[in-house]
Amino acid sequence: MTLVNGSPQEEIELSDRGFQYGDGLFETIAVKNGHPCFINRHLTRLNAGCRRLLIPEYDATLLQSEALSLCKNSHSAVLKIIITRGSGGRGYRQPETINPTRVLSIHPYPSYPSSYKAHGIAVRFCETRLGLNPTLAGIKHLNRLEQVLARAEWSNLNIQEGIMLDLNDCVIEGTMTNIFYVKNHTLYTSPLLYSGVAGIMRDIIIEIANTHGYALCVQNFKEHELLSADEAFVCNSIIGIWPIKSINSTQFEIGLITRQLQYMLSKYEHEDICANL
Amino acid sequence: MTLVNGSPQEEIELSDRGFQYGDGLFETIAVKNGHPCFINRHLTRLNAGCRRLLIPEYDATLLQSEALSLCKNSHSAVLKIIITRGSGGRGYRQPETINPTRVLSIHPYPSYPSSYKAHGIAVRFCETRLGLNPTLAGIKHLNRLEQVLARAEWSNLNIQEGIMLDLNDCVIEGTMTNIFYVKNHTLYTSPLLYSGVAGIMRDIIIEIANTHGYALCVQNFKEHELLSADEAFVCNSIIGIWPIKSINSTQFEIGLITRQLQYMLSKYEHEDICANL
Repeated sequence: MTLVNGSPQEEIELSDRGFQYGDGLFETIAVKNGHPCFINRHLTRLNAGCRRLLIPEYDATLLQSEALSLCKNSHSAVLKIIITRGSGGRGYRQPETINPTRVLSIHPYPSYPSSYKAHGIAVRFCETRLGLNPTLAGIKHLNRLEQVLARAEWSNLNIQEGIMLDLNDCVIEGTMTNIFYVKNHTLYTSPLLYSGVAGIMRDIIIEIANTHGYALCVQNFKEHELLSADEAFVCNSIIGIWPIKSINSTQFEIGLITRQLQYMLSKYEHEDICANL
Repeated sequence: MTLVNGSPQEEIELSDRGFQYGDGLFETIAVKNGHPCFINRHLTRLNAGCRRLLIPEYDATLLQSEALSLCKNSHSAVLKIIITRGSGGRGYRQPETINPTRVLSIHPYPSYPSSYKAHGIAVRFCETRLGLNPTLAGIKHLNRLEQVLARAEWSNLNIQEGIMLDLNDCVIEGTMTNIFYVKNHTLYTSPLLYSGVAGIMRDIIIEIANTHGYALCVQNFKEHELLSADEAFVCNSIIGIWPIKSINSTQFEIGLITRQLQYMLSKYEHEDICANL
């Protein structure tokens, strides 16, 4: 089921700037028991992205009501929201009056084995480097060729994620996740100032860490620092937290802090669902 | 008139990866007297871009015949060709079998005053910087948020183009053009190794320069070097060559080399049209 500007539809005008230029942004939201998890955080990020891309902010009440009506019969699903700058303008120049397009669609929840969360995943480093682009860094925008090319690097079903470095050899994120590691009881993650997507799950983990007194450094780090970690994990809104059990040939234990964060995250999710019942 | 995979159509599936991720590339081609100018060069570049993006090369004969049939009744127009990775796959992961989407559309030729070519244009420097991304540099791909944001910086109708620098302060290109300058009888243009689109018109000008014995340096240059130029111009497939008469408050003469290149380009265009009659 898909709604384009409120109407059931499976197609979009060719002239939409989302298709012509990747001129828009999106959110991917887990749906559990009919509830789009952390919907308020997602809608807040979407509006912040719109401001950075000079796309008029949408009507939050309208979008939320469409999201809830699409999700209400889904036990377990993924809600995707795309906002584009709409049609019109001449070439790259935006039209004088921007009428954004909003697309809400429901998709089956991916069939990930429960072992990924319980026993961890194997990851690899990608050859494809993330470019440096502070203007767009952090935004979940529709210009995603880097991720497509990185994800095309491997087809081995035993590798669940690829870790991407930027041009300066800093470790930034996974192709579809953010990455954290733990060293000497301190959590580390990338600041995402020059590339990467500032994920909602990353935000929540940072919030949990701050609230519960974990030491946290949001700073650049390199491959060798990640490989010498005590624990490491990836996260996103759909999967929650997946511990990393190996990066190429380096093995990792699934440590206490990763397990504590998984537990606290499940409490956060439960509270979010209850607050919106 | 628009053809999607050979059928007249004004819409595209929402699931097309062009819309979801900007997962594709495009060509913009001038149509004169029913002829898509430099069509062979455009189709060659399109295939080179497909190879870099791991999109299967299209059937050149089919694409050319569709292009010619769309253009044959247009005296003066713009032909746009978009190729995407098609639908399917899971998230960023491409499908095992890629069925690219091809979209050919005809648009009115923009109503630029003839004075732009004859007497030059006024340009400005953009605040928006081009990111550094060697994986994608040179390709005319569908990830064009940088250009959209740069073009949104000004609405003054007396400014015809914005010049973009990269993060390293190198002058790269215009929002919709490539840029050359002349200093002491030598032509300069950016190598586009970390950003920018390697335009067909840029290629042709480089070829003309090499064929006719002009000194040419394809190398990085900075703002102050451009501002101290003897002549400067921008180019693309639709406009040909537009001399620059001013950059912000710096005035330029329209020099002999710019005029010679405009003249030789018109001969090239004529030969291209005649060769395909």
